[in-house]
Amino acid sequence: MEIREIFAHNLRALRKTKGLSQEELAHEAGLDRTYISSLERQIYGASIDVVDRIAKGLAVEAADLLRCPEAEATK
Amino acid sequence: MEIREIFAHNLRALRKTKGLSQEELAHEAGLDRTYISSLERQIYGASIDVVDRIAKGLAVEAADLLRCPEAEATK
Repeated sequence: MEIREIFAHNLRALRKTKGLSQEELAHEAGLDRTYISSLERQIYGASIDVVDRIAKGLAVEAADLLRCPEAEATK
Repeated sequence: MEIREIFAHNLRALRKTKGLSQEELAHEAGLDRTYISSLERQIYGASIDVVDRIAKGLAVEAADLLRCPEAEATK
């Protein structure tokens, strides 16, 4: 999996696990809803500053957003 | 720790563990040596695309570069 795909997958999965809409997460992270949407569609390569803001909005570690789901699945 | 500090710390620590100079890592990752140096000095917020290239150059997972060292230390 490409890094943008991994990030988009984890972002969406963790957001849904936390029961947050894109709009609610955007508000928590101080970002625009359209930007969250773009990241989930792999349009941009987020900076680590953005990854950190989103991680804080989701109450997870930044590293959790870049962890390869395939690696987890094969454990 | 701020995310840039975490990334810079892990980048430098993993690079040294692998016995690579900034120049050697830059070559492996297809980046400029001065850019690696800037990241270790927390000048820029790297994009996840850059984090991924560096991770591949270091033969680690991208997530390893954003993992908080304090959290590891208290385990």
